[in-house]
Amino acid sequence: MGDSFGHAFRITTFGESHGAALGVVIDGCPPGLLLDQDAIQAECDRRRPGQSKLVTPRKEADRIEILSGLFEGRTTGTALAMLVRNEDADSSKYDDLKDLYRPSHADFTYDARYGFRDHRGGGRSSARETVARVAAGAVARQVLQSRLPGFDCVSWVESVGDLVASVDPNAVTRDAVEATDVRCPDPAVAAAMIERIQAVRKARDTIGGVVGVVARGVPAGFGDPIFDKLDGDLGKAMLSLPAAKGVEIGDGFRGTHLLGSQHNDPFVPKSGRIGTTTNHAGGILGGISSGEPIVVRVAFKPVATLFQPQTTVNTRGEPVVFAARGRHDPCVLPRAVPIVEAMMCLVLADHLLRLPVPHRR
Amino acid sequence: MGDSFGHAFRITTFGESHGAALGVVIDGCPPGLLLDQDAIQAECDRRRPGQSKLVTPRKEADRIEILSGLFEGRTTGTALAMLVRNEDADSSKYDDLKDLYRPSHADFTYDARYGFRDHRGGGRSSARETVARVAAGAVARQVLQSRLPGFDCVSWVESVGDLVASVDPNAVTRDAVEATDVRCPDPAVAAAMIERIQAVRKARDTIGGVVGVVARGVPAGFGDPIFDKLDGDLGKAMLSLPAAKGVEIGDGFRGTHLLGSQHNDPFVPKSGRIGTTTNHAGGILGGISSGEPIVVRVAFKPVATLFQPQTTVNTRGEPVVFAARGRHDPCVLPRAVPIVEAMMCLVLADHLLRLPVPHRR
Amino acid sequence: MGDSFGHAFRITTFGESHGAALGVVIDGCPPGLLLDQDAIQAECDRRRPGQSKLVTPRKEADRIEILSGLFEGRTTGTALAMLVRNEDADSSKYDDLKDLYRPSHADFTYDARYGFRDHRGGGRSSARETVARVAAGAVARQVLQSRLPGFDCVSWVESVGDLVASVDPNAVTRDAVEATDVRCPDPAVAAAMIERIQAVRKARDTIGGVVGVVARGVPAGFGDPIFDKLDGDLGKAMLSLPAAKGVEIGDGFRGTHLLGSQHNDPFVPKSGRIGTTTNHAGGILGGISSGEPIVVRVAFKPVATLFQPQTTVNTRGEPVVFAARGRHDPCVLPRAVPIVEAMMCLVLADHLLRLPVPHRR
Amino acid sequence: MGDSFGHAFRITTFGESHGAALGVVIDGCPPGLLLDQDAIQAECDRRRPGQSKLVTPRKEADRIEILSGLFEGRTTGTALAMLVRNEDADSSKYDDLKDLYRPSHADFTYDARYGFRDHRGGGRSSARETVARVAAGAVARQVLQSRLPGFDCVSWVESVGDLVASVDPNAVTRDAVEATDVRCPDPAVAAAMIERIQAVRKARDTIGGVVGVVARGVPAGFGDPIFDKLDGDLGKAMLSLPAAKGVEIGDGFRGTHLLGSQHNDPFVPKSGRIGTTTNHAGGILGGISSGEPIVVRVAFKPVATLFQPQTTVNTRGEPVVFAARGRHDPCVLPRAVPIVEAMMCLVLADHLLRLPVPHRR
Repeated sequence: MGDSFGHAFRITTFGESHGAALGVVIDGCPPGLLLDQDAIQAECDRRRPGQSKLVTPRKEADRIEILSGLFEGRTTGTALAMLVRNEDADSSKYDDLKDLYRPSHADFTYDARYGFRDHRGGGRSSARETVARVAAGAVARQVLQSRLPGFDCVSWVESVGDLVASVDPNAVTRDAVEATDVRCPDPAVAAAMIERIQAVRKARDTIGGVVGVVARGVPAGFGDPIFDKLDGDLGKAMLSLPAAKGVEIGDGFRGTHLLGSQHNDPFVPKSGRIGTTTNHAGGILGGISSGEPIVVRVAFKPVATLFQPQTTVNTRGEPVVFAARGRHDPCVLPRAVPIVEAMMCLVLADHLLRLPVPHRR
Repeated sequence: MGDSFGHAFRITTFGESHGAALGVVIDGCPPGLLLDQDAIQAECDRRRPGQSKLVTPRKEADRIEILSGLFEGRTTGTALAMLVRNEDADSSKYDDLKDLYRPSHADFTYDARYGFRDHRGGGRSSARETVARVAAGAVARQVLQSRLPGFDCVSWVESVGDLVASVDPNAVTRDAVEATDVRCPDPAVAAAMIERIQAVRKARDTIGGVVGVVARGVPAGFGDPIFDKLDGDLGKAMLSLPAAKGVEIGDGFRGTHLLGSQHNDPFVPKSGRIGTTTNHAGGILGGISSGEPIVVRVAFKPVATLFQPQTTVNTRGEPVVFAARGRHDPCVLPRAVPIVEAMMCLVLADHLLRLPVPHRR
Repeated sequence: MGDSFGHAFRITTFGESHGAALGVVIDGCPPGLLLDQDAIQAECDRRRPGQSKLVTPRKEADRIEILSGLFEGRTTGTALAMLVRNEDADSSKYDDLKDLYRPSHADFTYDARYGFRDHRGGGRSSARETVARVAAGAVARQVLQSRLPGFDCVSWVESVGDLVASVDPNAVTRDAVEATDVRCPDPAVAAAMIERIQAVRKARDTIGGVVGVVARGVPAGFGDPIFDKLDGDLGKAMLSLPAAKGVEIGDGFRGTHLLGSQHNDPFVPKSGRIGTTTNHAGGILGGISSGEPIVVRVAFKPVATLFQPQTTVNTRGEPVVFAARGRHDPCVLPRAVPIVEAMMCLVLADHLLRLPVPHRR
Repeated sequence: MGDSFGHAFRITTFGESHGAALGVVIDGCPPGLLLDQDAIQAECDRRRPGQSKLVTPRKEADRIEILSGLFEGRTTGTALAMLVRNEDADSSKYDDLKDLYRPSHADFTYDARYGFRDHRGGGRSSARETVARVAAGAVARQVLQSRLPGFDCVSWVESVGDLVASVDPNAVTRDAVEATDVRCPDPAVAAAMIERIQAVRKARDTIGGVVGVVARGVPAGFGDPIFDKLDGDLGKAMLSLPAAKGVEIGDGFRGTHLLGSQHNDPFVPKSGRIGTTTNHAGGILGGISSGEPIVVRVAFKPVATLFQPQTTVNTRGEPVVFAARGRHDPCVLPRAVPIVEAMMCLVLADHLLRLPVPHRR
């Protein structure tokens, strides 16, 4: 189990890095939505490898084919399936991985869980799986846009190593994000990040960082206490991403350094609705959206694949030395940006459709 | 929706701070377990208010009554229900909260979500709800102990404001945690934390911090990729707790400052199994347990209830000034310790029972 | 697992025949409903034993206590829990059942499933469990009534053995059903049924039959193809009842004797909506309600408990002879009537709340 | 919602009659199973149209492509996706259906549910959707065979109209079923059925009937009371099939004509296990398998598509006359046989994998 996510807008993904295809089925997409297929493809293109010199040159067209759930351009309300064929999948170069466990990869734990493993490019554990999430997230985004005027979701690279950008979640735009290869909307820090990533690559090493994401235009009232709080579902969504090791809502860990009198967000009247002057809470109170921007940050560990020798063990438990070859990102952060947006949209579309009655605020 | 958590070991909780009772039903508890009811009560007693001068003096016996699912001391395998009657519930003192929205509480968002709200002590959004989680978590712990020799789960207060303890997740014991009122196993820092909390209380303010938790003795192989990864489920579990705003697995956000060559955990043979020399990953790789200790940290924002005047709005959206009265913790961290342990045990019991075949490692 | 039913209006029941209590938690009850608690009690009273000379004289007050989810008379939208304490539970008389498997009871299969069994009065497998369903069904009915003007649900005894009543699902009323002890609205057949049941009881035997149920006032559009069709969910609901062994939608098995030209229901304009002249389909087409009355029939096998000697085996697999003592119904049909209504209401409330947008027909 | 079925062995299907493709994703298939792909294709071939003169001549190769979840011939334990491309899909001939509601079809109710409908060949409501179930059912069967020595599942046509075959569920074989075009293992009745179906077709009419199915070799202990009883899940499975309007477990409706002393199945020792001398219960007691053959019957209404004029309404609610053209079965029963087997296998595989511990009987 585990290939599905969401309740009312529920996705099931399938596919391995070097199998025939990857894809996703959406169960619960509302009927009658005029689907912008180009927008779906565009999101997948943002995630695609080979876009800049910062990321892996693996060449994949990642053409999205819609197999079902669409009639005369509109969603039917029944299962919407999307498919991406694998193309650039030369598995032979993974043969030497068959009998060893790469450090900090899922090789060992997949064997422990399943007694068995597709070793080609990580198999099901490959980050290539996220193409299906991005396609589904693009549909979720259109669902949200069709029902929430002013809905917007923007993600960015907030930090790479100790280089931290200054980004205002209330104002950041996709254009500013896309303006640099590293997808950091703070130009000066972006330049330093690019330099750092190239230095790290040259050193045959890798580096992690933090991705931020904001959803604006979400009204108050999204989220289902006790256990399906919006923060909980966002946490699960983000920590289900490859290499994600931390998640914060609003001020998160930094907020623990504040006193209550500093952290509390005072309510005030705001042009026809109730809002807050600050947003330490990241737009969620008691697990329910407050109407303020929903702000989340996700920590990604450095890429586990290194082009330098590392000690590890083989499948018989004997020590071996291993150095990766092939095509790998030194830093996943730029490509994580559309993926994190997709997860935000998937969670919000799910909660939009969980609202049992028309939303009143 | 939202009152349930888990798949194979599934809990449904109910109850409000000032209603008749709180409780939980466990669906999926394995049959034949000789249940230690005193141990369940003991866990709830750890969570209970009034245990030290650091926490709220609200007096609740919190006696757990088992209503079903137990026969001759053993679990039957069918619904196990537990009940806690509310006793010290004087609702009248909440009357002045009826028409206003307390800052950084769930009053406003519950009204937005449900169009309606039980204002007495936070109603369903009260942290008092966690007594049901702790009772269920105590059952989950016994399930784990009965099947995993050497299973152990310990939580502690890692930081209060900027006071950070030094704690070794591999070695920390419950005795060391319980040795101080603040439940921090680092005695020197614990003393400073206690002093800080008392100062904050005197200033009519509140303070947050970080709780750490470790599960030891979990074999490799727990966790269901892609979406029910162990990290994702732990993230959801922890972020469903009142006041939780961040969660980390292993090195989490700090790990983003490391290079891949520093963060990777080398595999080595370890007394009959495969292990790692370091544990930056926090015991989880690819969403599946690695056999190393599972280490999680949870950020709790400062308590929202202040005994000092704050500006806010009433339910008509008009500005008002509000200062809390009554009994409230200046810092939830010490009482969060058993709750965080409960959530860890609930997630692990769920994944233990999701394993389709007897576990082999 | 298995103690829960429904998706958007989800119930979890607990309790055994001779444990402390039975109860139910409803997750997903819409907020703001002014709950008629007397109506809930009245439904449970209809199910209660000891109402007539046809049914078991076990004396249970079956007082429903609402534990949570209600504030100032209205549902809060969070978990609504209801409790019924067991009173007349003399378990000692079940001691001789401990070591044998009663024919056609669940004793043997519970041992096979759980390795363990509460032998007192059937434990969790007792039909007493249905009191929790009836309480929840009464809430579901109020949800439906509050949103569907003209909603109505009536159940009746359609046959006892080979005595078959003539009942018009379009017209049958609860008053007509309650007019006889056997709850059959066809007075002549009802008299024969009563006579038959008493004769069967005198012969220390038992008898089965069929219960019919109709829901009127359900608009077209309820039901979620492919797998959550209304017929499928009704089938699961009804076949989850103790002693139920068959279920029909509309003409069901008899409809297989008709040709397509006889079975098809012609569409016609009907006072502002589209309807059908006949209703062989039982109000469901393609798994979705058509706006016509939803008609279901449920077959109940004869009660398994006989007051005459039967051969069976003990728990060691050795042949023994067994004759039941105590208090048991010779025919469950009359008491099944409110239970079948409850299941119909639970399924319909669930599908009402699964409709993602306000219903348009 | 509604495109998924099962909990531990969970399928999600997609696709329409005249869309690009149909398919299924299995979440929860156990890892390490050496999959017989020819056996999957063979089951789909049994369901395929055009096999005999009794069924629709629509020509579809229905080639199954496995997209994921398989590595070196073995299941990986992660999402197993299978695809069938549509080929013989000439949609133009459905243009005249766009604006009317065919009697007893799902046209009207889909419009009511979704506000929108793919009118080509029934769209998602087409029975063509069942090809995905059959493919998944063939995998489920292999899961069952790999773990239950002696497992066997056979389905047959039990009646067509009032022609009822005599079939012994304990002994019936697939060979006997496949020996006649109508898939009835009682040769004399089979001949009469074939004659009847041809007469009905000549009369431009259609006819329904009953399909029986048995699963043998299922040990005692499958099924999860209270709500996920084996009978309930089988009922839901069968009533989710197109045109299914009734389901019986064991004696079902006929059993209501028996007294308890006739219907009870006496337990006896049976070669190393406990069994029963008769099997009125159809192999299920208290919702749990007893170890005896599991016997289910499903009523299918006559096909709704008639080649004779019928009165109905158009989408504006105005009366019109309609006669179908094209390719349609006069009787779905023969092709329902592999589909009913598939649903039985899907339910049993799901419950096999829900058993939390190795099965002991």
